[in-house]
Amino acid sequence: MNNSAEAPKVDTERFAAMFEELSLYGATPKGGLHRLAASREDGEVRDRFAKMLLEAGLEVRVDGIGNMFGLCEWTPGADFLLVGSHLDSQPRGGRFDGAYGVIAGAAVCMSLLEAVRNGHPAPPLNVAVVNWTNEEGARFRPSLTGSSVYTGKLALEQALLLRDDQGITLGEALSAIGYCGVDTPPKPAGCVEIHNEIGRVLENSGADIGVVTRNWGANKYELVFHGEQAHTGPTPMADRRDALVAASMMIVEARRIADNYHDEELRTSVGRAVIEPNSANVVPAKVTLSLEIRSPNSAVLTELDSYVRTFWKRIQAETRCDIEVLAETRREAMPFWPAGIERAEAVTDQLGYTSRRLDTVAGHDVVAVMGLVPGVLIEVPSYQGIGHNEAEYTEPEQLKRGVEVLNALVWELAHNDPRKTNSQYAVHPDAARA
Amino acid sequence: MNNSAEAPKVDTERFAAMFEELSLYGATPKGGLHRLAASREDGEVRDRFAKMLLEAGLEVRVDGIGNMFGLCEWTPGADFLLVGSHLDSQPRGGRFDGAYGVIAGAAVCMSLLEAVRNGHPAPPLNVAVVNWTNEEGARFRPSLTGSSVYTGKLALEQALLLRDDQGITLGEALSAIGYCGVDTPPKPAGCVEIHNEIGRVLENSGADIGVVTRNWGANKYELVFHGEQAHTGPTPMADRRDALVAASMMIVEARRIADNYHDEELRTSVGRAVIEPNSANVVPAKVTLSLEIRSPNSAVLTELDSYVRTFWKRIQAETRCDIEVLAETRREAMPFWPAGIERAEAVTDQLGYTSRRLDTVAGHDVVAVMGLVPGVLIEVPSYQGIGHNEAEYTEPEQLKRGVEVLNALVWELAHNDPRKTNSQYAVHPDAARA
Repeated sequence: MNNSAEAPKVDTERFAAMFEELSLYGATPKGGLHRLAASREDGEVRDRFAKMLLEAGLEVRVDGIGNMFGLCEWTPGADFLLVGSHLDSQPRGGRFDGAYGVIAGAAVCMSLLEAVRNGHPAPPLNVAVVNWTNEEGARFRPSLTGSSVYTGKLALEQALLLRDDQGITLGEALSAIGYCGVDTPPKPAGCVEIHNEIGRVLENSGADIGVVTRNWGANKYELVFHGEQAHTGPTPMADRRDALVAASMMIVEARRIADNYHDEELRTSVGRAVIEPNSANVVPAKVTLSLEIRSPNSAVLTELDSYVRTFWKRIQAETRCDIEVLAETRREAMPFWPAGIERAEAVTDQLGYTSRRLDTVAGHDVVAVMGLVPGVLIEVPSYQGIGHNEAEYTEPEQLKRGVEVLNALVWELAHNDPRKTNSQYAVHPDAARA
Repeated sequence: MNNSAEAPKVDTERFAAMFEELSLYGATPKGGLHRLAASREDGEVRDRFAKMLLEAGLEVRVDGIGNMFGLCEWTPGADFLLVGSHLDSQPRGGRFDGAYGVIAGAAVCMSLLEAVRNGHPAPPLNVAVVNWTNEEGARFRPSLTGSSVYTGKLALEQALLLRDDQGITLGEALSAIGYCGVDTPPKPAGCVEIHNEIGRVLENSGADIGVVTRNWGANKYELVFHGEQAHTGPTPMADRRDALVAASMMIVEARRIADNYHDEELRTSVGRAVIEPNSANVVPAKVTLSLEIRSPNSAVLTELDSYVRTFWKRIQAETRCDIEVLAETRREAMPFWPAGIERAEAVTDQLGYTSRRLDTVAGHDVVAVMGLVPGVLIEVPSYQGIGHNEAEYTEPEQLKRGVEVLNALVWELAHNDPRKTNSQYAVHPDAARA
């Protein structure tokens, strides 16, 4: 904790102005954001964001998966502390999710760069703001695409071939908006992300800042239920192989399973189902759905993975539909970097704000990057815990407090390389794969 | 039964050639048809069909809802016996459903017109082949659109404003393909339709021709489940209002209900559900689905209408979602015109073919027209009862037998006005509304 007291002040008014302006790209009438990854709106906000970075003197790089980096290279050749999140949103999603973290990171970088240029001694690590591609996984699955490619967990070639529901590949969509880049991304020394909580822990506790100590694990499945297309009238019930009945059994059961566990042990959902041919008079032939089972408890994830496989057999027996597992991923619950947690708490305290430790149930880019280098995730309160919804909201004052804490934390970490200061902390078990 | 023995012979080779050619418009690689109402493919097949009618000397008329009529007006001023079905198909549907009836009707009209022009005495009633618009209800709901507008059961203005899932109105789509017509449709004296069975009764019994004695009734509902969009991770299970869980409860229950009845008493289905926003990480906010409950028994329909309303309350209580009934229709089971059944059986027998009486569970345009004038529905066998599926199939010889029977039946009815010959038969109870 040597240098945070000396951190140059961040311009929170500039943050607020940038946030207001960038919220216009993909704005919905109800105050939300509809800015799917690599869409026209995403291209427009990226163009505007890049211009802001360039005007503030940052170097802009775009890598092969469209991740955007704004570099402050005040120590030539040194590695970079990454700070950022994502500018893409869910369909009719909120203005804060992701965008807040990117714009807060940009405001911090801009102020720090100005300070250094005005004579403030530069920290040993460089700093870069980042906008990760397709964090949401709404248009292209899996989510966390850009950060997973960055860490090497997902092959670039494979990521560029992900297809949306219209059959457009991510590569094609990025090319169309001019964001299939060729730049080499900066080498990381650590990663910091600020996000709105999307949960009620901070609101209920009255704390200004949440410091994340653990991310939940998850089993995610892309399932295809194969039935047989038939007429809904004359086809005898016994002859039907109704893929929608089969899929609905899974959807209802996913909800039922959760009722058997404590809410802090398990969250389940099916957010998406594509039905074919989807005509009122036709028994559905095929349903593709996305099943998520989230838990902080690895044993629960293992238990439920086994349970759903048994349940699929029951669905097959009852409906005579076939079930194909198109993709399945297991994300393990993981503790965050202990020294990072402590530093985040310390800078918050020094600024006179209050903090509270909490879990993150949602996935975030910093978690993917933690496969390479230590990471820190801090959060600001969100009104009634609302997220992935146009009504998502955080008070301007709370946003600004978050920017101030982020600024101090970045300054602190840029002086004390996260890779050196906590030798007993093992980074993400996936690091070996990265 | 005065005149059928004298019916001019129908050219079944011409029928087969027309059927082959028109099956190319919207043909799928697997031998099916994807020709949604008022689509580009539907426009192309209509153009080709109209040209065939004109070349054979029929007068072509297109009314305000795009119904196409090919008129044989050999008795100036007399009313018309209508014979036809629909050229639109389900998504990836079969080649026979509807198209067979239109092309068979055209082949009959063409041969009869030639015979009359070559000196064969004309029957007192005129005859017209008809292609009804949007029978399937796949792209625009409700189904039987063209025939319902023709009988006055559905207002033209209302029908033109039906929207597909892209928000395009039926009126716009018909204009785009040039089939928002201005012609006055012919005045009906009766209606005949031939269709493939889409069922196994004929196949199992070995009969050549099915004569329909009753159509099943149906309750059809367009339901909207209103939940609340939220993040699938951080949002506590108890806080969720998941519209897809609510909709899935209905889908599973619809199937379960059917298991409590004999298959000849009840068929249930949900063929279509539109989920919003339909993203893997988002609790669905809204699901719109089409529920069908079909029964020949009016009491069963009434009982289940009451039951599903109770079940909606249970879904609302369990999921905290709201359920909106966007549209609901009740189609009553109805016996067909007894004299028409007997005449169809008689002409089949005279041609040396075998017939069997059966129900129709599927809706057909002739049922809508039976609100105005008596109607007859005859059927040919369909392989394994497959329908609304690319694998739908009927043997060429069976198709030709059907064309011969249709020819004889049309000739018979054109000599004996259906409206006069069976005074004790009441037409469809909806006739008063028409």
